[in-house]
Amino acid sequence: MFYLVLLSTMSQGIIKEEILRDDLKYYFMSPCEKYRARRQLPWKLGVQILKIVMITSQLILFGLNNQLVVSYKEENAMTFKNLFLKDYSGVDEEDYSVALYSQQAVYDSLFYVLDQYRQLGRLSVGPISYAEEDGKLLPLVICKEYYKRGNVEPSDEAYDIDAQLEKVCMANDPTNVSQWKAENVSFFNLEFYRLVDIKITFQLKGINLQTVRSHELPDCYVFFVTITFDNQCHSGKIKIFLDIDALSSACKNWKISGTAQKNTHYLLVFDGFVILVCLTSAVLCTRSIVLAVKLLQRFSRFFRENYNHKVCKTDQKEFLNGWYVLVIVSDAMAIVGSILKMEIQAKSLTSYDVCSIFLGTSTLMVWVGVIRYLGYFQKYNVLILTMKTAFPKVIRFCCCAGMIYLGYTFCGWIVLGPYHEKNYQKNGFPMTDLQRFLREQKDFPPSEEGSEMDTETGMGHPALCCCRRAPSNDDIILIS
Amino acid sequence: MFYLVLLSTMSQGIIKEEILRDDLKYYFMSPCEKYRARRQLPWKLGVQILKIVMITSQLILFGLNNQLVVSYKEENAMTFKNLFLKDYSGVDEEDYSVALYSQQAVYDSLFYVLDQYRQLGRLSVGPISYAEEDGKLLPLVICKEYYKRGNVEPSDEAYDIDAQLEKVCMANDPTNVSQWKAENVSFFNLEFYRLVDIKITFQLKGINLQTVRSHELPDCYVFFVTITFDNQCHSGKIKIFLDIDALSSACKNWKISGTAQKNTHYLLVFDGFVILVCLTSAVLCTRSIVLAVKLLQRFSRFFRENYNHKVCKTDQKEFLNGWYVLVIVSDAMAIVGSILKMEIQAKSLTSYDVCSIFLGTSTLMVWVGVIRYLGYFQKYNVLILTMKTAFPKVIRFCCCAGMIYLGYTFCGWIVLGPYHEKNYQKNGFPMTDLQRFLREQKDFPPSEEGSEMDTETGMGHPALCCCRRAPSNDDIILIS
Amino acid sequence: MFYLVLLSTMSQGIIKEEILRDDLKYYFMSPCEKYRARRQLPWKLGVQILKIVMITSQLILFGLNNQLVVSYKEENAMTFKNLFLKDYSGVDEEDYSVALYSQQAVYDSLFYVLDQYRQLGRLSVGPISYAEEDGKLLPLVICKEYYKRGNVEPSDEAYDIDAQLEKVCMANDPTNVSQWKAENVSFFNLEFYRLVDIKITFQLKGINLQTVRSHELPDCYVFFVTITFDNQCHSGKIKIFLDIDALSSACKNWKISGTAQKNTHYLLVFDGFVILVCLTSAVLCTRSIVLAVKLLQRFSRFFRENYNHKVCKTDQKEFLNGWYVLVIVSDAMAIVGSILKMEIQAKSLTSYDVCSIFLGTSTLMVWVGVIRYLGYFQKYNVLILTMKTAFPKVIRFCCCAGMIYLGYTFCGWIVLGPYHEKNYQKNGFPMTDLQRFLREQKDFPPSEEGSEMDTETGMGHPALCCCRRAPSNDDIILIS
Amino acid sequence: MFYLVLLSTMSQGIIKEEILRDDLKYYFMSPCEKYRARRQLPWKLGVQILKIVMITSQLILFGLNNQLVVSYKEENAMTFKNLFLKDYSGVDEEDYSVALYSQQAVYDSLFYVLDQYRQLGRLSVGPISYAEEDGKLLPLVICKEYYKRGNVEPSDEAYDIDAQLEKVCMANDPTNVSQWKAENVSFFNLEFYRLVDIKITFQLKGINLQTVRSHELPDCYVFFVTITFDNQCHSGKIKIFLDIDALSSACKNWKISGTAQKNTHYLLVFDGFVILVCLTSAVLCTRSIVLAVKLLQRFSRFFRENYNHKVCKTDQKEFLNGWYVLVIVSDAMAIVGSILKMEIQAKSLTSYDVCSIFLGTSTLMVWVGVIRYLGYFQKYNVLILTMKTAFPKVIRFCCCAGMIYLGYTFCGWIVLGPYHEKNYQKNGFPMTDLQRFLREQKDFPPSEEGSEMDTETGMGHPALCCCRRAPSNDDIILIS
Repeated sequence: MFYLVLLSTMSQGIIKEEILRDDLKYYFMSPCEKYRARRQLPWKLGVQILKIVMITSQLILFGLNNQLVVSYKEENAMTFKNLFLKDYSGVDEEDYSVALYSQQAVYDSLFYVLDQYRQLGRLSVGPISYAEEDGKLLPLVICKEYYKRGNVEPSDEAYDIDAQLEKVCMANDPTNVSQWKAENVSFFNLEFYRLVDIKITFQLKGINLQTVRSHELPDCYVFFVTITFDNQCHSGKIKIFLDIDALSSACKNWKISGTAQKNTHYLLVFDGFVILVCLTSAVLCTRSIVLAVKLLQRFSRFFRENYNHKVCKTDQKEFLNGWYVLVIVSDAMAIVGSILKMEIQAKSLTSYDVCSIFLGTSTLMVWVGVIRYLGYFQKYNVLILTMKTAFPKVIRFCCCAGMIYLGYTFCGWIVLGPYHEKNYQKNGFPMTDLQRFLREQKDFPPSEEGSEMDTETGMGHPALCCCRRAPSNDDIILIS
Repeated sequence: MFYLVLLSTMSQGIIKEEILRDDLKYYFMSPCEKYRARRQLPWKLGVQILKIVMITSQLILFGLNNQLVVSYKEENAMTFKNLFLKDYSGVDEEDYSVALYSQQAVYDSLFYVLDQYRQLGRLSVGPISYAEEDGKLLPLVICKEYYKRGNVEPSDEAYDIDAQLEKVCMANDPTNVSQWKAENVSFFNLEFYRLVDIKITFQLKGINLQTVRSHELPDCYVFFVTITFDNQCHSGKIKIFLDIDALSSACKNWKISGTAQKNTHYLLVFDGFVILVCLTSAVLCTRSIVLAVKLLQRFSRFFRENYNHKVCKTDQKEFLNGWYVLVIVSDAMAIVGSILKMEIQAKSLTSYDVCSIFLGTSTLMVWVGVIRYLGYFQKYNVLILTMKTAFPKVIRFCCCAGMIYLGYTFCGWIVLGPYHEKNYQKNGFPMTDLQRFLREQKDFPPSEEGSEMDTETGMGHPALCCCRRAPSNDDIILIS
Repeated sequence: MFYLVLLSTMSQGIIKEEILRDDLKYYFMSPCEKYRARRQLPWKLGVQILKIVMITSQLILFGLNNQLVVSYKEENAMTFKNLFLKDYSGVDEEDYSVALYSQQAVYDSLFYVLDQYRQLGRLSVGPISYAEEDGKLLPLVICKEYYKRGNVEPSDEAYDIDAQLEKVCMANDPTNVSQWKAENVSFFNLEFYRLVDIKITFQLKGINLQTVRSHELPDCYVFFVTITFDNQCHSGKIKIFLDIDALSSACKNWKISGTAQKNTHYLLVFDGFVILVCLTSAVLCTRSIVLAVKLLQRFSRFFRENYNHKVCKTDQKEFLNGWYVLVIVSDAMAIVGSILKMEIQAKSLTSYDVCSIFLGTSTLMVWVGVIRYLGYFQKYNVLILTMKTAFPKVIRFCCCAGMIYLGYTFCGWIVLGPYHEKNYQKNGFPMTDLQRFLREQKDFPPSEEGSEMDTETGMGHPALCCCRRAPSNDDIILIS
Repeated sequence: MFYLVLLSTMSQGIIKEEILRDDLKYYFMSPCEKYRARRQLPWKLGVQILKIVMITSQLILFGLNNQLVVSYKEENAMTFKNLFLKDYSGVDEEDYSVALYSQQAVYDSLFYVLDQYRQLGRLSVGPISYAEEDGKLLPLVICKEYYKRGNVEPSDEAYDIDAQLEKVCMANDPTNVSQWKAENVSFFNLEFYRLVDIKITFQLKGINLQTVRSHELPDCYVFFVTITFDNQCHSGKIKIFLDIDALSSACKNWKISGTAQKNTHYLLVFDGFVILVCLTSAVLCTRSIVLAVKLLQRFSRFFRENYNHKVCKTDQKEFLNGWYVLVIVSDAMAIVGSILKMEIQAKSLTSYDVCSIFLGTSTLMVWVGVIRYLGYFQKYNVLILTMKTAFPKVIRFCCCAGMIYLGYTFCGWIVLGPYHEKNYQKNGFPMTDLQRFLREQKDFPPSEEGSEMDTETGMGHPALCCCRRAPSNDDIILIS
């Protein structure tokens, strides 16, 4: 009897061990082997393949659409430069559009902007018009910023300036620009040795009719145009910058018939389907991880009970499949990205950058994930294992090389940098942002003097800049 | 007696085996060894060398000839751009030739085309003249395409458009262009906010006299010139494109004496000889393959009979010479290519592209085939075997890297793409064709509305575009 | 008793040996291990990390500041080129700014310089004015250098020149340039076949107001402008060069209120702190080296006394830590660099180049020194040792390759060089300095003839050039 | 007695063997070891070092001198292009200088050349003048080449041409160019459809005064200028080419005092010394080779006599020092090059190219020879042996890759070539020379017709071109 029980217990133990061994074997099989062993269809693999196709398509559609919008904005910027900047060559130099060296050229360029703005309607080939608010045309604003004169009473010494900056602005609507110019002669009488910059700002409306051809509703834009005559450096060279900010807005003054907002519906459905597939994939992978953890627990319990020692670290690691984590992260990002995309298409969000980072990263991960399936083929596996081993060594080498490179960069920058600004390309230099930040920081006023006597003049006024009212000028309309 | 028979059978067997062994040895010899062993001259090698020389010469002759034709067409395109485009800088930007930003510039450029066309005879230094048909000069056609006005009755709202495109065309012969311009003032009154594009098309005749100097008959061409003022983007920038299609045609109005069509005969004979050599080479290689198969059969029969087991796969593979297959494929392509070349020279075909792919690929194969002969040298053989072994590993590595690259490309495109269109080169971007395809696809009209009410206006009309008649315009000649 | 003494001596020996072993073990520990063993805090490591941060910050601040100054000078050079050079394209070709080919163009450009200089005040947008000394405006000087006429009496043979160079100069103040031009017609009558060059030199004052915005005192500059019309080559092409030398000077005619020289104090304190940290680091490392030498002496004495043989070379080397030497050298350079920097900021020195080399090199060394700390990690150590072993082999290979490269360079230069000056870039060519040196050397006058009869004309006169007075010219003011 | 003789013979044998062993050992020593062993000073090494220094200096001097001459010629070419070509942009496009598209532009450019040529004296800033012979100014020659009219009698059919080329030329001296132009209106009446090209040729004198400054005699040059209006392609685009040939000549009309031809003497002495050193080096190396051969003979005789077998191939090879051969070849080339250089400096030869190839190659070899001395250091020897072993494998790999590359080039050229002439750079394409050659070959007239009726018109007439007299033109001066 005892023997029988013992036998039965033993056989039970043996059976348990066999089942565990089978489960473990099955766990480490590739989809093909699983199909051969238990005729299980590779659902997960199928979902992944479907996901690759869908996410990539979604990305391409999103990218193409945005490229159209970006190219529209860029072409408009080009148009404004050609319309408003005198002697514009068609190509920007480094960071500015036009450089002026003589006083006459500055006056000519300045009045050219005003003249061109006045006759914009007859001039431009695009559907651009003056922006308006509450039925009134928005004004063109011209501001000049200069160093305050040191003495209030006019002295015979020409070169007498104060470190304080002064800013005067004028605003007028486009229709009577020329009259306005004639009436404010003293404003346009520039004292170049004191002048810091002139800023002309105005707003224009445009309409992107490209989508009309595909019977979608067009987008309207408000362009905030800023033309800056920059004399900060006082080196005898005035640089002209033209910047535009484009803001999507409702199309008011346009009547467009024969269009609809159809295609968007299909796109929303597609995006929803992407989210569904990603959810499925994430759930399947989570389930796999849970199953793996359970299997590991069974295995370690078995080990503890039978051989009375723990499963070693390396073996434990085998159960933790990094690919699943990658897939889940990728799925999460794709879901977030798709939701953002839907919001953008519904025009309730404009954070294109965030959305593109989410979608792009998830696509990158999905494609990298394909390598895992290549690993099921014997020969590829060798390659992947080799790469895995070599990776930390490569990283380590890069660390060492990076130290030397950093030191070399600093050394080269300080020794060669300022004298050879043109041998290397400015854009690629790692300092410029820092440089700008540090240069800006110098613009802080000394806190004990500036904080009390400065009053902000508001409009188009950078956060760190101190301007003072100019109380004694008659013909100048101050904007506060 | 029995012993004798046995002996004789045995000796017969031994002799058979010896012969088989000799044949096998001989089969795996290099041409040099074959010559040393049985004084067999290496015919096949000779044929291959002759083939390399001939196919390469044929390719060079073909290429040089085509280069002349292509450069003639390109120079003509350049000439037309310089003659018809106002302020053409001599270099195309990205994809267009000239960019216009102001209304006046558009009118000037438009009338410049018409004026230059009118006085073409006195203007151009090339033997270009107006194309004619049945003794009548072919007309210049100018079409403008625009969005239909939303309301038929004129309203005071300027910006009222319909998504439907309308197209009006005018045709006139070159001699009275200026009068025509004066009579159709309203046609040339462009409403830029509705304008989509203007297309001017005309045909010119040219003659390629270069061949006359080598006493061959010259080729005549008809150039289909299309000048497009493109305002599709409505971004304030109108791009001018000039495209030409050149069609080889018979020379009618020219009397050319002192030329003949001689050289072509020599070329045809040469092409025929190339075909002959390729045929010989193909036949010799096929024969070698047949012999190899027979030898393999003999060898496996001997093995089965004597040792009673099959020849293993690896040994069987040794008999299958991949080089022969390469040579035969190359020969087939060279023959097809040569026949196409003859047809092209006889001007009964113009499919230059197909021909060049055939000839080019066969030449590539022939030169790659030279590596085989290098393999006869002991030292090179080691190298070739190494390359053979390494090849699949390299391919496998490329697969893995390709996955990462693909993911990286998509991610980079979506994240960085639209904002840095100029940091990378536009031409090299892998999406553009797809992009164009997808953008085109949007131009489909919504089928339930468009199919009934649209009527084609015909002439120069792209397949996917819907235009409607403009019934109420008086002074416009419609072409349907 | 004897035994006890022996025992005590032995045990003393054993104890001594143990202490030595402990000290040695401790010496070769990493900072972490030292902390674990004797709870010693890693002061030295902390100082090094602090040093990296401080030296790098100092370098960046210094670099940014100098970049501002350099860009100010460069923009001024650009301004002068645009103001004074007729038909200046905005880009220098190779080494010159403008090339002239016709006599009229030379006269036009010459008078253009004078005209623009005369009306500078009304012309330039920058705060540039004529330099003055003792209340008097400094004159514009124009010199022309030409080959002496062979015969003193005018002959009918036009082409009669002497190898001797003659130089005549004129000076006048800016206000009456036009009158001066009219009065000296014969000076401006150039005989091109004899003309070697024309040099126009003048001085301008400028002010760098950029620092005013950060409430620092601005720097004033004197610009020494030299415009050279170079006809040395007599190839029919006259090249115009414009060079400026900028000298920082006190701001005299300017009254600037509301600024102070505050920030400099903070910077000086920061620099002082950098020097302190570097001194600490150097002292600590010197101490470590001294300790190491003492330890080595103890170890070798122990070895000599107990085992009676010397410590081998390799073991001795282990005590010499190259990193410490690197740190000390780096510290010394940083200290020298910081002192120079302070002197430059106090405007008592202008040797920016020397300072930047000291600071740059020390920063490079400090960053390279970081590799040492990476060596404390086991895995990095393997990498560093590998690099150490491979380094001499790489150097040796470079030597061999260098020989071949040198030979190849010389061969390529002589065979291809003069005919393909444009396929490679001129700037990158290793010969040019040598070339200039050797070409200059040819300009030495033959000593036996020249030394006696030449008289220097002084002003702006290169050291190696021989000029003679032109005694018979009436209307020319000679400057001697 | 016998024993003694035997002993003596044996000992003699042993002594002989010892001497041979010593000689062999000594032969394979490095210079250092030789010095240590027998105190022999390393003369040969010294000579080699001296040679490197001298040959390199000589090469640099030669190169610098030639660069001056080449740059003089290039600047003159630039000058002529700027003086004679209307609307020259300063940069050549691909191969031509200016492209013309309209008839008016051709006439303008043509007359511009004549006008500028007429007033050259007043125009150019360089010492350029009309060339003369026997006191008479050489004429400007203008030739036009065109297709013969098919019918002699004027028909109303405009386009009637003969494949025969006709060439008419006119010559006139520079002073009365404008009158000449007026008198030959019909010559300047161009029929563009028949016109092949117009060639204007004239000769100008120039003087390179640069050497005058170093008190050397200047070089005079005759420039043969050819301006070609090329309409061969009849594509509506006429290309203008300007080519100059510069011929060094005696300076006639110039009186230059104060110069001498001194430096040349020093240079000649230096060259002579170089030859001497190279001769010494060559003699020493030849002697070493002779000694080595003698030693080998002694060694092999000894082997044959004592061991009765031959010295194996590998051992024989050890005696053949390849470096000596390299040095001798290099010396021979340096001697030939130096002699050529002396001839060139004495202006009795102008074959600069040949000389530079000799000097360059010898310098390359001399520097490569330095590697040998590096081989004396133990560690370098390993490297050099490794490179020696790897070299044939690399070459073999290049052969295989070359085959594939060749095939790929041909294939790519034919398939992609003609359509993408601008994606790759024209200059780098390997076919162009061949292409030109093959294109030229087509210009052969059909021998059976052309050889009899063609008469050469002489002047400036390319060898392969057939021109015929134009007997019926009245106002055209034919040059035969």
